[in-house]
Amino acid sequence: MPPRTYAIVGVGALGGFYAGRLHHAGHPVHLLLHSDADHVRAHGLKVISEHHGDLSIPANAAHAYDDPAAMPRCDVVIVGLKTTHNHLLPGILPHVVADGGIVVMLQNGLGEERRVAEIDGVGGRCTILGGLAFLCSHKVGPGHIHHLDYGQVRFGQYTPDGRDAGVTETVRAVAGDFAKAGVPVELEPNLDLARWKKLVWNVPFNGLSVVLNTTTDVIVGHADTRRLSADLMREVQAGAAACGHAIDDAFLDLMMANTDRMVAYKPSMKLDHEACRPLELEAIYGNPIRAAASAGVALPRITMLYQQLKLIDAHRTA
Amino acid sequence: MPPRTYAIVGVGALGGFYAGRLHHAGHPVHLLLHSDADHVRAHGLKVISEHHGDLSIPANAAHAYDDPAAMPRCDVVIVGLKTTHNHLLPGILPHVVADGGIVVMLQNGLGEERRVAEIDGVGGRCTILGGLAFLCSHKVGPGHIHHLDYGQVRFGQYTPDGRDAGVTETVRAVAGDFAKAGVPVELEPNLDLARWKKLVWNVPFNGLSVVLNTTTDVIVGHADTRRLSADLMREVQAGAAACGHAIDDAFLDLMMANTDRMVAYKPSMKLDHEACRPLELEAIYGNPIRAAASAGVALPRITMLYQQLKLIDAHRTA
Repeated sequence: MPPRTYAIVGVGALGGFYAGRLHHAGHPVHLLLHSDADHVRAHGLKVISEHHGDLSIPANAAHAYDDPAAMPRCDVVIVGLKTTHNHLLPGILPHVVADGGIVVMLQNGLGEERRVAEIDGVGGRCTILGGLAFLCSHKVGPGHIHHLDYGQVRFGQYTPDGRDAGVTETVRAVAGDFAKAGVPVELEPNLDLARWKKLVWNVPFNGLSVVLNTTTDVIVGHADTRRLSADLMREVQAGAAACGHAIDDAFLDLMMANTDRMVAYKPSMKLDHEACRPLELEAIYGNPIRAAASAGVALPRITMLYQQLKLIDAHRTA
Repeated sequence: MPPRTYAIVGVGALGGFYAGRLHHAGHPVHLLLHSDADHVRAHGLKVISEHHGDLSIPANAAHAYDDPAAMPRCDVVIVGLKTTHNHLLPGILPHVVADGGIVVMLQNGLGEERRVAEIDGVGGRCTILGGLAFLCSHKVGPGHIHHLDYGQVRFGQYTPDGRDAGVTETVRAVAGDFAKAGVPVELEPNLDLARWKKLVWNVPFNGLSVVLNTTTDVIVGHADTRRLSADLMREVQAGAAACGHAIDDAFLDLMMANTDRMVAYKPSMKLDHEACRPLELEAIYGNPIRAAASAGVALPRITMLYQQLKLIDAHRTA
């Protein structure tokens, strides 16, 4: 059987790194870019990793596109866009995913798979997975990615009602490709639970680092904001519980202890804010708040952080 | 009967304005200053009001001190310090208030009268009032105050248990002096209730203007932060209710409507923050949170704002 073909939608710090890994593992990789398409067609995609060395894709092997209609239909589509660009997916996915193909939402936050399931010509025709990347990587220039550390991906299959999909064959297939490409993987029987668990860290530290204009070490190093972070984590836990997903206290303690061990760190939302990019507010805040509210549980502190961030994000736009 | 003598402790934008008014009404006024004492002794206190004209105290009538022990004991002591300086009061008040005299805490927030009641040689010997000033005034230089608008003071008498003192003779006497000096006054039978009502505005707009680095018009003009402001007002209402004070919904609506009519406004905490002065966090946030907690009511949003502000204030100090 020939290796599965991959389309990478959004070739930034995240999509670019995994594109390089999959290419080097022998998969045909088709890249959908925006402003960098010409550059990558001419010069290839440069991916330099501190741990894995040179993962670049040379110009003669870099299939770069700026028009999804020009792309071949691929077995697997990796969506590596920021969630703030997911409104573009109805114009992209129907062109690039094969019949019976797979869409992997390799993004932060909760609930964005549902939007893909509702796209005509995708929902009924494809299997939708979610992927949670734990990655430290930067885009340093056009078609130029610098991978610093980590890279694990947790894969799970989307279900409309948030219940266990189990570890499906599709999850095993995609995770197997990534594993063979040297990416550490975990297989998640319940995608929603995995996403809620990642929110335990993302909800307090992404938002507070933007609102308070600081780094994680300062937030956990000050008694009041450490307590606030812990309270926000507990609200994520309560939201998950309302949606049927149990996260135990030990996991919250572990997230706090991990943060204590980290150096001064700017979460992705802080970097987005500094670069005047839109903030991933719906995936990380709005969707979880609405999911918990539908289950009858209010999350007042998370809602307050969301409201504060909405003002900050609106001012960027203005 | 000779006019009551007044000591003004803290001669900034607020203390300076009322000092000018009381002097012009014929009261002997003794000013306790910090860095501006020499300047005021030499040049007097310059108080220019947009509405009332020149309220200055000339050098030959400006009794300026930088040492409370050098001051005469006065019938009434007006404390016009920021609440962040109230730790200085045990070293000041016992020197400057007459036996059977009156201390008026003309400050923001809640619960600072209790600290005065606990000062040896003050609590048992004096009557303690609170005053709530609604004033727009600036200190523009050493011993130089510019009054822009308003100036009403609401007076009420302190009671240890927060219950109604009623409109006492002492309240009538001090309010009468202010009224004769051209200051609009209101007499409050319950000081705590009056302070909680002022918090309905101060809690949302002081803190959010600092955390979000903006003005009141932006906060109430954006749907999310308007809702947050309303939620914070409702928590103040809940805290007041827990302490036995009813504030009706119409008052909350009025505060919001008043804010809608205001121009772009920087609350005092925002001005303090911009000037790198300590923030009045305990009087406006910590004391109300603790008072409500003692009555069994948690105020999660107000607590979150307090925690955020504590980090911001700690960074100023650092």
